[in-house]
Amino acid sequence: MSKSVTAAASPLAPKSFPTVKPVAGVRLSGRAVGLKPSGAKDLMVAELAKGSTIAGVFTRSRCPSGPVDWCREILPKGRARVIVVNSGNANAFTGAAGDIVVANTVATAAKLFGCRRDEVYIASTGVIGEPVPPNHIAGKLAGMRRSLGARGWRPAAEAIMTTDTFPKAASRSAKIGNATVTIAGFAKGSGMIAPDMATMLGFVFTDARLPAPVLQKLLRRVADRSFNAITVDGDTSTSDTVLLAATGQVKGQPRISRSNDPALAGFTAALEEVCTDLAQQIVRDGEGAQKFVTVSVRGAESKRAARAIGLSIANSPLVKTAIAGEDPNWGRIVMAVGKAGEKADRDRLSIAIGGIPITENGQLMPGYDETPVAKHMKGDEIGITVDVGVGRGRATVWTCDLTHGYITINADYRS
Amino acid sequence: MSKSVTAAASPLAPKSFPTVKPVAGVRLSGRAVGLKPSGAKDLMVAELAKGSTIAGVFTRSRCPSGPVDWCREILPKGRARVIVVNSGNANAFTGAAGDIVVANTVATAAKLFGCRRDEVYIASTGVIGEPVPPNHIAGKLAGMRRSLGARGWRPAAEAIMTTDTFPKAASRSAKIGNATVTIAGFAKGSGMIAPDMATMLGFVFTDARLPAPVLQKLLRRVADRSFNAITVDGDTSTSDTVLLAATGQVKGQPRISRSNDPALAGFTAALEEVCTDLAQQIVRDGEGAQKFVTVSVRGAESKRAARAIGLSIANSPLVKTAIAGEDPNWGRIVMAVGKAGEKADRDRLSIAIGGIPITENGQLMPGYDETPVAKHMKGDEIGITVDVGVGRGRATVWTCDLTHGYITINADYRS
Repeated sequence: MSKSVTAAASPLAPKSFPTVKPVAGVRLSGRAVGLKPSGAKDLMVAELAKGSTIAGVFTRSRCPSGPVDWCREILPKGRARVIVVNSGNANAFTGAAGDIVVANTVATAAKLFGCRRDEVYIASTGVIGEPVPPNHIAGKLAGMRRSLGARGWRPAAEAIMTTDTFPKAASRSAKIGNATVTIAGFAKGSGMIAPDMATMLGFVFTDARLPAPVLQKLLRRVADRSFNAITVDGDTSTSDTVLLAATGQVKGQPRISRSNDPALAGFTAALEEVCTDLAQQIVRDGEGAQKFVTVSVRGAESKRAARAIGLSIANSPLVKTAIAGEDPNWGRIVMAVGKAGEKADRDRLSIAIGGIPITENGQLMPGYDETPVAKHMKGDEIGITVDVGVGRGRATVWTCDLTHGYITINADYRS
Repeated sequence: MSKSVTAAASPLAPKSFPTVKPVAGVRLSGRAVGLKPSGAKDLMVAELAKGSTIAGVFTRSRCPSGPVDWCREILPKGRARVIVVNSGNANAFTGAAGDIVVANTVATAAKLFGCRRDEVYIASTGVIGEPVPPNHIAGKLAGMRRSLGARGWRPAAEAIMTTDTFPKAASRSAKIGNATVTIAGFAKGSGMIAPDMATMLGFVFTDARLPAPVLQKLLRRVADRSFNAITVDGDTSTSDTVLLAATGQVKGQPRISRSNDPALAGFTAALEEVCTDLAQQIVRDGEGAQKFVTVSVRGAESKRAARAIGLSIANSPLVKTAIAGEDPNWGRIVMAVGKAGEKADRDRLSIAIGGIPITENGQLMPGYDETPVAKHMKGDEIGITVDVGVGRGRATVWTCDLTHGYITINADYRS
């Protein structure tokens, strides 16, 4: 199918797939069931122990896919036993036919795994506008169930890939009271198989015992600083989904009833590390990416304003092409700060690249020498720091450069 | 300097520079005064007859340039005698030194042309962050004044270019009562001379006699449907400026005191034609543009919502690269509708390309045949029509495709 499917791994990819510890109460499978014409893995099932709680954040698209609608509908129940994710077909913009696919998959999974239908979560990514035959996925679930295992992280991560060039996973441990809990997850990023669109999916699991409302608050907070702080091209899929499931299988964990319980500090930090790790891997696999870019904004009116300014810089085609061209073009950063629509004081604006101050208080540094900045731009990890001079809001966002590779992947392939 | 300055004209350029009629009360000059290292024309002066009124719309950037600040400050007076525009240097992000350049230019022009300082308008585009020597532009004004003429449209249009590949002008006539008035203008588009940013400048003149508040209302209304309805890469300059001046030199025009006077219908339509013509020329000169794209949105909650959806489609890198690749990838259009954040009914969404219906009521047309759509995509004028199925709001926006040429111009050139 698309040439990008068989492309070499991104130059920014981690050296190898990480070691991921089992999470008590989670069994996984990833297999090929014929949705991808290439024959690659395309179906993932995760089984969760009885009593597992779940949280989710979804695309803000006003045209979400059927699977997203389903997950949103059942999320208030806060319970999950099965997560079914397919790649190769997004089941988006498929009307009533798509709803039937979701309903059949959910009903079959509930029967097979002995749970309620509202404990079955679904996500789909791949070609849009072409419904899968109504029972295709449902018919594969029995086989998937037989192949479940506690160490299936890599095949699971592979089975949700579209044009990703490497599977993405991360895990950490943390203490809640005296209990050591594990957090592990996998994700896929923005890839495309024409006619298709980028979709971000992330699935994170822990053996901690946490009520669904606590889990939801933690996920929303952490997602804002990780998955919502990355951008490849500013486009938003109809299917973006992040789920966080807690099996409660850990022994000896103190009871937790609110998200700001001090006992959760370590867990929250570890969860943010896992989500940030996964989010950064998505950026590192951005289409055509040659450079990984960290944009740090401070001095904004609020955290929210700082993130908006950071995303304006990170989404600017002019900034991204300048980085691709290794051009320390700080003028384009000024432009992107201005267009963010957030308060900024032009006459106090300070910009640094690679830690080297370029402008301060709205003017070029006296005797500014571009040489060390140009040298930093030649590396593959670029740091941009901006102080907009009006308040104390801070945020960090991550992106990649905009290269000929992006155009080649998205324009040169004809469906 | 940048290779794009000497690039061949865009493949979408008009065949020739249009014939522009003189506007009574307007004299123009465009000359080279050494701001562009290439030696090309880089200073434009327009002299307006006594009693001329003026209207303006400016960048929404929170980091506007010094010239924009100056124009905004004097605009409430509504009177203009001189407009001075330089290319080659944006005088943006130049702090106090930049303000001195503006002040010296304004003071010298006021003295030379015998007018008040608040009748002198300034715009600058080009390199940012490097102030011009404080009296460089002021020192050239006497020479500019000697070369003014009623037929100087082409040199004027050339003198405001940066990486534009062709000068842009348009004119129309209209009746107000029994009087025939002329409207003529020129503009420049998004070009870049590193380290620089895209800037849109437009200057429109008429011999009609219109009070400044009427002129301002007309300009704001028309700009929303023309200059604010185009996008090349979604980036916003610190210096975007459109000025509309009325000299009042026409004979026998009835007195007009409000912008919704029925006698203005023809004038308003002609003004919109001039502004739309100029705006479309800017898109046709978009960096790397190979295709001119018209996006028509209907069925939105309001005009504003329709334009937001249109711009979301027109700004989407995925849509723009699909057009570059001649790929009738309607899934990316669904995505862009969804991410606009405006109300849309996924199950009533209809999309057509080149007038050929692709989806209707949220599903692919039964028996959809891509062949005629693929043929349309091979042309250089692409039409996308979207009905989002919730209301009666309509809008049209224009853009170009995103090609390797854009990356080459913006990434491959090293400053």
